[in-house]
Amino acid sequence: MMLTDHNLPRVIIVGGGFAGLNAAKGLAGAQASLLLLDRTNHHLFQPLLYQVATSVLSPSDIASPIRQVLSKQSNVQVALSPVDRVDLENRRVCLPHQHIDYDYLVLAAGATHSYFSHDTWPHFAPGLKTVEDALKIRNRVLLAYEEAEWETDYEARRAKLTFVVVGGGPTGVELAGTLKEIAAHAISRDFRFIDTTTARVILIEAGSRLLPAMPEESSRSAQRQLERMGVEVRLNCPVTDFREGEVELGEEILPAANIIWAAGVRGAPLAQTLGVALDKAGRVPVNPDLSLPGHPEVFVAGDLAHAVDSSTQKPVPGVAPAAIQMGRHVAKIIRSEIEAGERESKREPFQYRDKGTMATIGRCRAVASVKGFKAQGLVAWLLWSLVHIWSLIGFRKRVFVFFSWLWSYFVYSPKARIITGKSDTCSGSPDRRIDDSGGNS
Amino acid sequence: MMLTDHNLPRVIIVGGGFAGLNAAKGLAGAQASLLLLDRTNHHLFQPLLYQVATSVLSPSDIASPIRQVLSKQSNVQVALSPVDRVDLENRRVCLPHQHIDYDYLVLAAGATHSYFSHDTWPHFAPGLKTVEDALKIRNRVLLAYEEAEWETDYEARRAKLTFVVVGGGPTGVELAGTLKEIAAHAISRDFRFIDTTTARVILIEAGSRLLPAMPEESSRSAQRQLERMGVEVRLNCPVTDFREGEVELGEEILPAANIIWAAGVRGAPLAQTLGVALDKAGRVPVNPDLSLPGHPEVFVAGDLAHAVDSSTQKPVPGVAPAAIQMGRHVAKIIRSEIEAGERESKREPFQYRDKGTMATIGRCRAVASVKGFKAQGLVAWLLWSLVHIWSLIGFRKRVFVFFSWLWSYFVYSPKARIITGKSDTCSGSPDRRIDDSGGNS
Repeated sequence: MMLTDHNLPRVIIVGGGFAGLNAAKGLAGAQASLLLLDRTNHHLFQPLLYQVATSVLSPSDIASPIRQVLSKQSNVQVALSPVDRVDLENRRVCLPHQHIDYDYLVLAAGATHSYFSHDTWPHFAPGLKTVEDALKIRNRVLLAYEEAEWETDYEARRAKLTFVVVGGGPTGVELAGTLKEIAAHAISRDFRFIDTTTARVILIEAGSRLLPAMPEESSRSAQRQLERMGVEVRLNCPVTDFREGEVELGEEILPAANIIWAAGVRGAPLAQTLGVALDKAGRVPVNPDLSLPGHPEVFVAGDLAHAVDSSTQKPVPGVAPAAIQMGRHVAKIIRSEIEAGERESKREPFQYRDKGTMATIGRCRAVASVKGFKAQGLVAWLLWSLVHIWSLIGFRKRVFVFFSWLWSYFVYSPKARIITGKSDTCSGSPDRRIDDSGGNS
Repeated sequence: MMLTDHNLPRVIIVGGGFAGLNAAKGLAGAQASLLLLDRTNHHLFQPLLYQVATSVLSPSDIASPIRQVLSKQSNVQVALSPVDRVDLENRRVCLPHQHIDYDYLVLAAGATHSYFSHDTWPHFAPGLKTVEDALKIRNRVLLAYEEAEWETDYEARRAKLTFVVVGGGPTGVELAGTLKEIAAHAISRDFRFIDTTTARVILIEAGSRLLPAMPEESSRSAQRQLERMGVEVRLNCPVTDFREGEVELGEEILPAANIIWAAGVRGAPLAQTLGVALDKAGRVPVNPDLSLPGHPEVFVAGDLAHAVDSSTQKPVPGVAPAAIQMGRHVAKIIRSEIEAGERESKREPFQYRDKGTMATIGRCRAVASVKGFKAQGLVAWLLWSLVHIWSLIGFRKRVFVFFSWLWSYFVYSPKARIITGKSDTCSGSPDRRIDDSGGNS
C-alpha cells in the first residue's frame, strides 16, 4: 500500500519497544512511508515484566499488539519479522527472505542478557527480557514449591526453597521483594508439608550497594526495606560460577534450585552486523543527535544506543523514559528534514530529561528519587504505582492493571499463578514422603 | 501431615477438574485423609477455553491453582503428579516414583481429543482441551494473519485467511463464531495489505445439524445466527483426510492453513490401565451409583464416566454441570459410609438434574434451552453470560472476567492478542511484497 508510493521517503524502524514505538508515533502524519519491524507482535511494558515472572500479572496485562497500538496511524506498516543484518553501504535492511531499502533507519532493537562470556550460565540462571523468559521463570518458581512439597530430604528441600537473584539493580530488587512476599503471604496457606514462609530469598550484588544508579540514601533504604521483609542481601559478592542447583561465590557454595539472572545486559546482536566499533556492553556509540557517525541517515535509540547527554555529558541510562525521549527526538529530526526536503546542516543534540528514578520493593514499599527529592516506603510506592499505571499503553490496560493490583495488594493473591507449557512436572527425586506415610499398605 | 494419620480412611481423587474438585469439596470436614492428584497445578474452567484460543481472555482468567481453591480445606492434600496406572486388586495408585494406597478412589481424569485412530490428524488439526492447546491455537491464528500480510500469491493468501473448525458441537460453534468476529471487527483496522473481514471461517459437521445435544429449534437458530455473521456452515460433511494446509472432504479439497479439531473426545488414557471393558469412546461404564462394577470402593465421575441417568435412563452428557453433580454425588456416598463406618447396603443412584444447555455464538448471540424454554440471540447470550460468570471459580475472577468481557464486547478489542512461545515467526513463503514495492533500489 503506502510502500508502493515511491515518492515518499521510506523510514524503517527496527524494534517495537519504547524507543521504536515512540519514533513511529512521533512521525504520525509525516509525509513518509514507515515500516516498523519486530520479532514479536507485541510491545512489552518491560518495567513490569518481573510481575509476570512472579505471577502477579498475566502477559497480556503488560503486552499490547504493536499493530493495535499503531492501527490508526495510516503512514506506518507493521511487520513481524526478524532482521538478519543492516547493510549500511547500500542502505538496506536484510530480512530472512528479502532486503528492504531505506532513506532513514532507526535502530531500536534493545538489549539482551549479558553473561560476560560464560556460555553455560544462561542455562542455570535464566534472565528476564521477554514474555517467554518471564513465563519460564514463573514456571520454575511455582514448580520449586511443588517439588519441595514432595521432597523428604531436609537439605534438598531447603535448596528447593532457596531463590537466588543475581544483580542488585531495579529488576533484581523488584524480583527479590516480590518473591519473598509471595512466599511469606500469598501461598503460605496452600501447602501442607512445607512452610513457605521459611523460603529463603537471597539477593546477590557484586558491587558495594543496591540500585547503583540511585542516590546512596535510596540504596540504603532499599536494602533496609528488603531486609525487614526477610530478604538476605549480600553486597560485594561476585558470583564465580553456576552449577546445577548451586551458586559458587568464591569459597562458598550456595545450594539453590532457583537462580535468576538480573546482573548484566548488552546490546542486541544486530548491532554487530553494522561493522562499527561497539562499546564493551555491545551498544552503538552515537553522535549527540543520536545518529551513527558517518551515517546521518541512521539513528540508534533506546537501550541499543550508547548516548551521552549533551548538557550533562553523562551517559544516558538504559531506562524506559530515556528510550521514549530518544525515540521522540529521532522522530523530530526526521520529520523536520522530510518537511524541509533536505538534511539539516546542524541537528539538535539529544538532551535527557531525568524525571527521577524509582524502584518498587513490595507491597507499599519502594524508593524514589526525583530531582533531589527522595521518598521511601508507602509514599514512594504510591508514586511508583501512579507513574507506572499511567505509562501503561492503552486506557483499558491502565484500568485493569490498576484494579488487578489493588486486589492483589489487598488480598495477597497473585492472579496468574498457573504453570503452563511443556516444563516437566515434578521430575525431582523419588517421592518417598507420601509413600512413607502410606502406613496401611 | 494428615496422611500419616493411619486411622483415617484415605480417599484419593485423580483429577482436579469439575468432578474431582467437587468430590474434594463435598468431603470438606469429613473424617478422612484426602489426596487430590493432577498433572497440572490448576483447575481449568473449560467451557471458556475457546476464549483463550481466540485471544479474548488470558489463561489465568479461567484457571485457578487447585491448591488455592482448596487451601482452607484442611483434610485435603493437593499434589502435582501424573498417574501412571491404577492397581485395582491391591487398591493403589501408581505414580512415576511410588505407589499410594487408597480406601476410596475417585477417578475423574476427564477426556482428551479423539481423532478416531487417525495418527497424523492431531498434527494438522490441533484440538482444544488444555491451556497449552489454547495457546497453540491462539499463536497459529494470530500468525496466520501476520503471514497473510506478507503473502503476495493470491491463492496462498486466501488459504492463510481460511479457518476451518471441524465439529459442530458447542466448542465448534463457539470457536467459529468468535474467529469470525475477530476477523470482521477486532483486527480489521490493524493490517495494511489484507482485508481481514474477508477471512473465511468454515464450520464443518459430519451430522445433519449443529449442537446435536440441543433441540432442533436451537440448532437451526445457531446455524442462522452463524450464517448471518458470515460463517460458512457445512452439514453432512465428514472430513476424509487432512494434509499440510488442506482438508479433504470426499471429492473436495479445501485449502486452509488453520484447522481446529472440535469433533471428538475420548476418555483419558488412564482408563485403559484399569483392565475393565470401556465403551467405544474410551469411557468407563459405571453402576447407577457411579461405582466401578465389582469395586464399590472405586468411583468414576465426570467426562471419564459412561453413566446413565437413573430416572430417565438416558446417558449423562459430558458437560460441566453433570461433572459437578457427579463429584458431589460421589462425595455424599463416601462421606456417609465414612460416618457410618461401613459400606452402605444400598447406595443412592445418580440422578442428573439437567438445568438446560446453552452455547454462545458471538457478541450478543447465543442459543439456550432450559426445561422446554428456548431462547436465542441477546436473551440467550445474557443468560449464558450470567451462568458462566457466576460459575467461574473465585469472586475475583468473576468480577474481572465480567469487566473484561464487557469491555471486549463494547470495543471489540480482544485483550490477549499476543503471540508467545517458540512458534516460529512468519516462516512462510519468500516475502516478495515489500521487496517488490521497494522501487527506489
